[in-house]
Amino acid sequence: MIKPLTSLPDYGTKTDEITLYAGPCSVESEEQFFEVAECISDLGLSWIRGGAFKPRTNPHSFQGLGEEGLKIMKAASEKYGLKTLTEAMDSAHVELVHKYVDGLQVGARNMQNFSLLKKIGEVTADSHKLVLLKRGLAGTISEWLSATEYITMNGNDNVVLCERGLRTFETTTRFTLDISAVPVIHKQSLFPICIDVSHPAGVRDLVPSLSYAAIAAGADSIMIEVHPNPSEALSDGPQQLTPAQFAELVEQLREIAAVFGKKIV
Amino acid sequence: MIKPLTSLPDYGTKTDEITLYAGPCSVESEEQFFEVAECISDLGLSWIRGGAFKPRTNPHSFQGLGEEGLKIMKAASEKYGLKTLTEAMDSAHVELVHKYVDGLQVGARNMQNFSLLKKIGEVTADSHKLVLLKRGLAGTISEWLSATEYITMNGNDNVVLCERGLRTFETTTRFTLDISAVPVIHKQSLFPICIDVSHPAGVRDLVPSLSYAAIAAGADSIMIEVHPNPSEALSDGPQQLTPAQFAELVEQLREIAAVFGKKIV
Amino acid sequence: MIKPLTSLPDYGTKTDEITLYAGPCSVESEEQFFEVAECISDLGLSWIRGGAFKPRTNPHSFQGLGEEGLKIMKAASEKYGLKTLTEAMDSAHVELVHKYVDGLQVGARNMQNFSLLKKIGEVTADSHKLVLLKRGLAGTISEWLSATEYITMNGNDNVVLCERGLRTFETTTRFTLDISAVPVIHKQSLFPICIDVSHPAGVRDLVPSLSYAAIAAGADSIMIEVHPNPSEALSDGPQQLTPAQFAELVEQLREIAAVFGKKIV
Amino acid sequence: MIKPLTSLPDYGTKTDEITLYAGPCSVESEEQFFEVAECISDLGLSWIRGGAFKPRTNPHSFQGLGEEGLKIMKAASEKYGLKTLTEAMDSAHVELVHKYVDGLQVGARNMQNFSLLKKIGEVTADSHKLVLLKRGLAGTISEWLSATEYITMNGNDNVVLCERGLRTFETTTRFTLDISAVPVIHKQSLFPICIDVSHPAGVRDLVPSLSYAAIAAGADSIMIEVHPNPSEALSDGPQQLTPAQFAELVEQLREIAAVFGKKIV
Repeated sequence: MIKPLTSLPDYGTKTDEITLYAGPCSVESEEQFFEVAECISDLGLSWIRGGAFKPRTNPHSFQGLGEEGLKIMKAASEKYGLKTLTEAMDSAHVELVHKYVDGLQVGARNMQNFSLLKKIGEVTADSHKLVLLKRGLAGTISEWLSATEYITMNGNDNVVLCERGLRTFETTTRFTLDISAVPVIHKQSLFPICIDVSHPAGVRDLVPSLSYAAIAAGADSIMIEVHPNPSEALSDGPQQLTPAQFAELVEQLREIAAVFGKKIV
Repeated sequence: MIKPLTSLPDYGTKTDEITLYAGPCSVESEEQFFEVAECISDLGLSWIRGGAFKPRTNPHSFQGLGEEGLKIMKAASEKYGLKTLTEAMDSAHVELVHKYVDGLQVGARNMQNFSLLKKIGEVTADSHKLVLLKRGLAGTISEWLSATEYITMNGNDNVVLCERGLRTFETTTRFTLDISAVPVIHKQSLFPICIDVSHPAGVRDLVPSLSYAAIAAGADSIMIEVHPNPSEALSDGPQQLTPAQFAELVEQLREIAAVFGKKIV
Repeated sequence: MIKPLTSLPDYGTKTDEITLYAGPCSVESEEQFFEVAECISDLGLSWIRGGAFKPRTNPHSFQGLGEEGLKIMKAASEKYGLKTLTEAMDSAHVELVHKYVDGLQVGARNMQNFSLLKKIGEVTADSHKLVLLKRGLAGTISEWLSATEYITMNGNDNVVLCERGLRTFETTTRFTLDISAVPVIHKQSLFPICIDVSHPAGVRDLVPSLSYAAIAAGADSIMIEVHPNPSEALSDGPQQLTPAQFAELVEQLREIAAVFGKKIV
Repeated sequence: MIKPLTSLPDYGTKTDEITLYAGPCSVESEEQFFEVAECISDLGLSWIRGGAFKPRTNPHSFQGLGEEGLKIMKAASEKYGLKTLTEAMDSAHVELVHKYVDGLQVGARNMQNFSLLKKIGEVTADSHKLVLLKRGLAGTISEWLSATEYITMNGNDNVVLCERGLRTFETTTRFTLDISAVPVIHKQSLFPICIDVSHPAGVRDLVPSLSYAAIAAGADSIMIEVHPNPSEALSDGPQQLTPAQFAELVEQLREIAAVFGKKIV
């Protein structure tokens, strides 16, 4: 384990646990979701993620299972003892989503959808359920922090910020992961920061390196897409890991976390 | 030490050594440069960097000591047993620079200064001295790799690619470090990749986190600016570490490198 | 008037009218809004715009007058014989907004708020009221065109695309106006394109040059912010024109439009 | 002709002439270059441009005819009574280039090649030949203006700034033309500004719209690539106009310039 710095601030030690938010891009069926849930549970992890309402660039693409997907998540949660995280895209769905899951995600395209943020802040005011706020593709850190106020103003400060890559001119990756966001968020705020490694990678073989970097930079949590059969996934197939690949990776991440005195949960 | 992946390619294990290119932004005096050299040598490292010719946005800013700076570098190299790295900005200076140092740097603003690249390729054709090619502020990875051909076409393939941050709209950091460049370069080429952690950080307190991430992502080398008295530096003061801060950081980096089976040199 | 090209396609002649969408950033009071409406009506123009629901980065900034603002717009519409355009930010408000105005604007932050787009498509399916879809700060033209399908899939194809500047590293302007979007949209789609000249400018003295360029590039409409007293505006004061400045500018725009065989309405 | 604004500054009236810098991307042969020169001369224009030393991303692409190209330019200049503009890429070639042509271009990749800028400043100190400084793909306006000082510090202030498009995420155009640079440069400096319409367009059918916009925004000069047979051009074929297309376009540009009280030369 590394010795803490004495001559410079330490922006990496908010907690001694690193949470993994793993799971498929979309909830596609009970069978698919349960297979991932079993893998996650067997690895001793605590959360599973999945999309029930999907924001798709094209209206003719798969839009998610909606409430049926939420029910599958709830069932998996009970069967495998996992907490669940899913995206709410529309203020009209927030109460429904809130009823089924443990954490609500705001997607990158909605970082400044202030109506949605306010609604989530209202609905979670008492439950204090986790709200994971993704940074926009061209969102500044300053805007991102300002946006949290729409959520917290009603009393829920259980907010996790999630960096998922910026849009730049570079095309070898799907988005440019801004790894510096980790220390900057720790320096400027009290919120934990998550790194979504799957979306900036765009392809699965870049996921391990970005995961290692996320832990080393001091991320409090990591989001990774896992699918039983990525080549048949209804969305984002090329960037999803198989359960076997994910299990291997988690073992590595535990070794790396240990050097920072942290454990993966 | 982490167990290698079997189900996905490993983009992080080009070598088992990670080279640090540390030193002041500018060579300012023998006293200044020797103090840093002594620190680097005491830490058992092998290279020192420093700028003798400085590319400055404003012609009225400090432009570097020129040949006098090169002489100071040569003297430090001999006294402390270190290899030296400095920037060549102009094809007219390449032979002079080549005479004094062990490695030539091409700055980000010159990534596509093809005349300079060709000249460096010619001058180092026999010596095979190291050429460190920084990525441009808006350079694509494809252009960066193409640019290496101007250097290697005369026979010197001792090229190190150095990622130093992209220009984006984000202003909390000086540049946006593209950490994904590490696995992408390992995937697409045989060149080692260096991460310059000081320029994207812009301020020294972000340097440790970016250094940890660089090692974890699989970087083959790291560039870090170190100055005996950063507040009086003639360039880039806010991002330079003191020797004491640097020594603490190196100790940490050695622990992190060990988990990847690597040592810092 | 210029002679049409015979050897290259003409991407500038979708119609022979250029519509101005002028008005204050926010509807602040009846007095303020009527003063602008009177100016617009006196100039023989047909539309007035204004914000009743305001998307603000900070929840403590002025959020708009809401339905009261819509009532002021309706009253101005009747008194001055103008059509009205305002932003709908939330699917919950779409029906309300639709009841009061002639055109609904989707803001840049909502270009990919697909729930909102669908709702607007549904609510305007019969009325075929104008829907002005702003391009996101980092929205590609391809995404922008895809987003229109969420609106048009219910039968309303009365969509105007509005370019309002991209987020780049440049800071002398608030956003970088992508003037090339005009011919590209005319080349790739049948939708008319509007140029919002006020937001990219960020300051009023750049507004005239950008307006001239918009007409010359072939824009079908132009959005310009006008406020009776910009220095006391509750939002975006520095970029709004006074009615007197606007009147002078419109006279110039009419001369420029004439050379392209168009008139300003 | 439009009436000048009285209530806002006019950033469009630096001169009453708009210079066209037309010509092929590369000088390929006497026959090719003379054909373009004849067209330009017949249209009553004053300058021809062409590349003799070409900065190419790939060292195996056509690199230009070098001094032979300069000789062809000189011959065309004498035969057709045109002034000539070409790029100098290397400080070692500046004197050679200066001997043959009337204007020296610094390419976008060299905006901050300070050695080259200084050398050009020195070589043109007495001749006061025109130096056209292109803005870098990610160059800020502030850096661009600072770079001019490297040229002017020796006494030649005959500098033209040339905007040629920024690198962004948008791919329907080759680069994103920053049309706002025109009024910003007129506001912040005394230098004339040129718009290169061919490089941001990337394809010839977008060239007319961008040219109209450049004139309307107040550009002092426009750069347009013209080639007798674009489909066989050795570089940048898709964006070059034929002489016939160019002649049609110039006729239009004269009409548009007239409304601003300017003529095309």
